[in-house]
Amino acid sequence: MESVNQLLASIQDVGRDAVRGGYSRAVYTTPEHDLRQWFIEQAAQRGLEVETDRNGIIWAWWGKPQKGALVTGSHLDSVPGGGAFDGPLGVASALAAVDILKARGVQPARSLAVTVFPEEEGSRFGVACLGSRLLTGAIDVHKALNLRDINGDSFADVASANGLDPRYIGPDPEAMARIGEFVELHVEQGKGLGQDGPAVAVGSSILGHGRWKISISGQGNHAGTTLMTDRADPMVAAAQIIVAVRDTAATQPDARATVGRLTPVPGGTNVIASRVDLWLDARHPDDAVTAHLIERIYGTAQDIAAAEGCSVTLTEESYSDTVHFDTDLSRRITGLLPGAPVLATGAGHDAGVLAGYVPSAMVFVRNPSGISHSPEEYVADEDASAGAIALADVVEGLL
Amino acid sequence: MESVNQLLASIQDVGRDAVRGGYSRAVYTTPEHDLRQWFIEQAAQRGLEVETDRNGIIWAWWGKPQKGALVTGSHLDSVPGGGAFDGPLGVASALAAVDILKARGVQPARSLAVTVFPEEEGSRFGVACLGSRLLTGAIDVHKALNLRDINGDSFADVASANGLDPRYIGPDPEAMARIGEFVELHVEQGKGLGQDGPAVAVGSSILGHGRWKISISGQGNHAGTTLMTDRADPMVAAAQIIVAVRDTAATQPDARATVGRLTPVPGGTNVIASRVDLWLDARHPDDAVTAHLIERIYGTAQDIAAAEGCSVTLTEESYSDTVHFDTDLSRRITGLLPGAPVLATGAGHDAGVLAGYVPSAMVFVRNPSGISHSPEEYVADEDASAGAIALADVVEGLL
Repeated sequence: MESVNQLLASIQDVGRDAVRGGYSRAVYTTPEHDLRQWFIEQAAQRGLEVETDRNGIIWAWWGKPQKGALVTGSHLDSVPGGGAFDGPLGVASALAAVDILKARGVQPARSLAVTVFPEEEGSRFGVACLGSRLLTGAIDVHKALNLRDINGDSFADVASANGLDPRYIGPDPEAMARIGEFVELHVEQGKGLGQDGPAVAVGSSILGHGRWKISISGQGNHAGTTLMTDRADPMVAAAQIIVAVRDTAATQPDARATVGRLTPVPGGTNVIASRVDLWLDARHPDDAVTAHLIERIYGTAQDIAAAEGCSVTLTEESYSDTVHFDTDLSRRITGLLPGAPVLATGAGHDAGVLAGYVPSAMVFVRNPSGISHSPEEYVADEDASAGAIALADVVEGLL
Repeated sequence: MESVNQLLASIQDVGRDAVRGGYSRAVYTTPEHDLRQWFIEQAAQRGLEVETDRNGIIWAWWGKPQKGALVTGSHLDSVPGGGAFDGPLGVASALAAVDILKARGVQPARSLAVTVFPEEEGSRFGVACLGSRLLTGAIDVHKALNLRDINGDSFADVASANGLDPRYIGPDPEAMARIGEFVELHVEQGKGLGQDGPAVAVGSSILGHGRWKISISGQGNHAGTTLMTDRADPMVAAAQIIVAVRDTAATQPDARATVGRLTPVPGGTNVIASRVDLWLDARHPDDAVTAHLIERIYGTAQDIAAAEGCSVTLTEESYSDTVHFDTDLSRRITGLLPGAPVLATGAGHDAGVLAGYVPSAMVFVRNPSGISHSPEEYVADEDASAGAIALADVVEGLL
């Protein structure tokens, strides 16, 4: 029997990013592959039957695979330079919960599956929760297969190189039928759990959120020979758009809008860029407000680009409506975790995608600073242990 | 005997960049290596004796290597997504000029060397004209050996892997003594030569120019869970700094300031960056004005960063004073090219570095749009031919 902290310690050297700090564990790269192997070995050590389905989701079964099982899990991939807990905490806690229940002598009345979803962060192919979107049919298969990573490799090719058959990638009704309920434990990503209160909370909803690509085109040229008055510099337009994104979101209560990724083309120091691509992440509890926010940002971007002699396009890469978790399931979980508060979150999760198809719920574990998607993300050992015990209590109560 | 257009055609498929368009031929990458091999073969076909010196500069000798020789040449490396002419036009024209002089039956009274300088663009290690700076001693050797490319590889290691011995990299007085005069032919990078006038010009001066790295640090965090009011987002600060760079330069006559390269760290769509690195290219004919411009920009950047809860550092990566080419040499060249106008340029060149040590001059060939450092850079075949003939005339007259 290994504690959740021991499990996390056993992967603490996988995928460290010496440049960014923290971890870079993009889907189907060596570190993420190593983590998948680690999970498969851990599941085997516990006598769980392991299968990787046609979308690359790993299922580890306690009991026979069956319809209407209880399923819990999370993901092992990370954002670039991410923390140690976002994803792995949920997977390690699920394995630890199995140990705890076995130690308690629990004989499950139905089967439990522990799952690992690929590309939850969307850090390689640009669409978050790609595994659960494919499983459920929330994303068009053709669109998914044609997603490309930064090297220009398609998801179809990368999936194929990782043992999947692109012909069978997509909605999987049989796999879906096996999910009676889905519960995901995850590190909290805000400051919703205070320092002195309980270490775990029950999720209520996920903010609607989406990603848009904004491309600004101008005239590439020489930085030394082109007079300031002769320029159509898309970087200067992009800069004003970034400020407009922030200012627009700041005037809208509860909105969040971020530009965290930007690529000038060609990207030389002595070269006026010909194009700048940037990605906008925007979220709000009211989907109509998000849509209006994007409209306002795009309008402003067009004005800015025109004033700089540039042009701009905006393309939605993904969008997820605001999700309210299953009321009945969440109420049962709250009953199993006395004193746990109920929290909304601004972060997307596979549980949010699955919630559109099967009863789903989340359990959050305290993150004292609220910092996430950063090397500074932190969960205290005792809180991680409390989270694993809470997940064991939930699973025992629901089985 | 091959024309300059045939020579350029023979390398037109080397180092094409499918993503950016144009060519990406960074020093000591496969395309630039292929171009160096091409040059060595072309020189050998002409019976020129070829040597690569301890700084990686290739010398092809017509006649015995000797002190006080006439030297002409340029570079084969490019900016990312650059044009076909910036660099290769000068090298190909030098080879073509040898052919033309041989066809004329010229018997040189002294030796001529055709040179290829590595890393003129600084697109791999960040310092432009690295080869000529090393040769002349214009850059500290220790600093140069410790320059790093985007993969973190040091110049010392890369040079070593490319056959150089880092112990011998640096000032080379013997090689310098061989340069009696240096003449570089280059595509013009502004609109200094009109459509209907002569196709070549003689260079008068190079604007003082430098590169500074600006790093803005903030608080990396989750794009969905962090309220707009809780952020210290270095991307928002960087954006305002980019606008300030443009606005500051626009108020200063003859100044040019550009941000063409920017890297958010970690660079995830759903991640508020923890740091943004950007590179500033700034130029002005008066070095004191450039220094003052950088001071103003840095002051403004500090105010902007502070207002966003971020911090900022500014580091000079390289600086070149304004260069006036050798008056006597330029006057002789003007005499050899009747009707050629005299032009200043905003672009840096190896001839500008060498000008601090040996009599140096430049010949420019028409670029109708003035666009450079871009796939759209263009020289008409007849103008390239006129340039090669002009270089042959200059070499014949100076030999």
